[in-house]
Amino acid sequence: MKNMNKFKITLEYLGSGFHGFQRQDNVISIQEVLETAIENLTKEKVITYAAGRTDAGVHAYGQVVHFDLKKDYQPYQLMQSLNHFMLPNPVGIIHCEKVNTEFHARFSAICRHYVYKIKNRSSVIVIDSGLKYLVREKLNIETMQIATNYLIGKYDFTSFRSSICQSSSPIKTISNIKIKTNADDIEIYVSAKSFLHHMVRNIVGTLIDVGLQKYPPEYVKAILENKNRCNAGATAPAHGLYFLRVDY
Amino acid sequence: MKNMNKFKITLEYLGSGFHGFQRQDNVISIQEVLETAIENLTKEKVITYAAGRTDAGVHAYGQVVHFDLKKDYQPYQLMQSLNHFMLPNPVGIIHCEKVNTEFHARFSAICRHYVYKIKNRSSVIVIDSGLKYLVREKLNIETMQIATNYLIGKYDFTSFRSSICQSSSPIKTISNIKIKTNADDIEIYVSAKSFLHHMVRNIVGTLIDVGLQKYPPEYVKAILENKNRCNAGATAPAHGLYFLRVDY
Repeated sequence: MKNMNKFKITLEYLGSGFHGFQRQDNVISIQEVLETAIENLTKEKVITYAAGRTDAGVHAYGQVVHFDLKKDYQPYQLMQSLNHFMLPNPVGIIHCEKVNTEFHARFSAICRHYVYKIKNRSSVIVIDSGLKYLVREKLNIETMQIATNYLIGKYDFTSFRSSICQSSSPIKTISNIKIKTNADDIEIYVSAKSFLHHMVRNIVGTLIDVGLQKYPPEYVKAILENKNRCNAGATAPAHGLYFLRVDY
Repeated sequence: MKNMNKFKITLEYLGSGFHGFQRQDNVISIQEVLETAIENLTKEKVITYAAGRTDAGVHAYGQVVHFDLKKDYQPYQLMQSLNHFMLPNPVGIIHCEKVNTEFHARFSAICRHYVYKIKNRSSVIVIDSGLKYLVREKLNIETMQIATNYLIGKYDFTSFRSSICQSSSPIKTISNIKIKTNADDIEIYVSAKSFLHHMVRNIVGTLIDVGLQKYPPEYVKAILENKNRCNAGATAPAHGLYFLRVDY
């Protein structure tokens, strides 16, 4: 589009209370909050494009979105004004820049990074309630680490794909999985160019099963090869998942 | 007291919404929530003793409290039952054990650890809203690190003491101050046997002034020596502060 100003924004949001990023009828989405704010500020009706359509309840530290405006704005001013218009929703722009017309938040992405946060202790979760998944039984991190080795690389991830996944192919390439621990906090970082629907949460659910010693880490290789969703672990809850960052 | 069972518990709580740990008339405190739960469960009216009386709005990962019960309880069961009775308050027991009669949560403590959490970026705070103090101007961590050196040790901390402090002496010994950074997150860890009222928040406020280059790090030495509260930085907000741990 000629004479348009293209903006790339980085969004942080609390997914709880939203029916995911993507606009839908009758339910509130992050996209709707953002597009309404843009329209209220600029009087331009825009469609925004996101790097990833996070599911209901999934949080983001670094969702990337682009949109075009007829009018030009100074990026920092645009960020602060849109943040004002999005209040009191738990959605905020943390970075804003002008980009060239070729940039596309979704199609230009070369790597997407997620983190899944677990609190592993027998008692309640208080300060991080709604921000981490509480696993009360002790997880064996060492076996979880071993299991990640079977998932890094290019595979058919049918076993880790939700039944409503719209991806044309189940073949994906996981570039990295890293587990970091700090006292009773466990963070699982997963990176790939793109993911199948529920793929990160299904991988986490399976790693949790390994950590609970329901099956040995080597079994994850069999799960992959079986190409059957029923063999893998349950989908880990949305509130532990964060869309972390996108590389372009 | 003879034939009493003494319990030591570790509490995690969100300070927002509470008027501090200590019980007061007409306003809600963490102590009241805890003592009410104990009474509802055990039918015993007890007084609880805490390692530190956190102020209104201050959070805790590891406040330590003791109390005596006539009836005996299995500690894990006591923890889970009290947690149930404290719902839906954002207060939870994360550890419970029986201790000998000499133990005192306040007087047996040999070191108290606090952490102050800062988010340092120009945009809004979303996911950690209410859990970190947002400083929008860039902080110079290096100068803040240098400034901590003037505060570690045994000094007269009159300049960092609130006017309503009830401590008999302004002489305190800070055993350590450590600043950890991770992207736009800054955590300031402060450890001492005991603290004056508002001491950690006044130290943090002063370190922030140094980080904002309002004065050089060496000036912190002069602030200490002047023994005048007016010279030090503003009291940093309560919602960035966490009572982390107590050593016995």
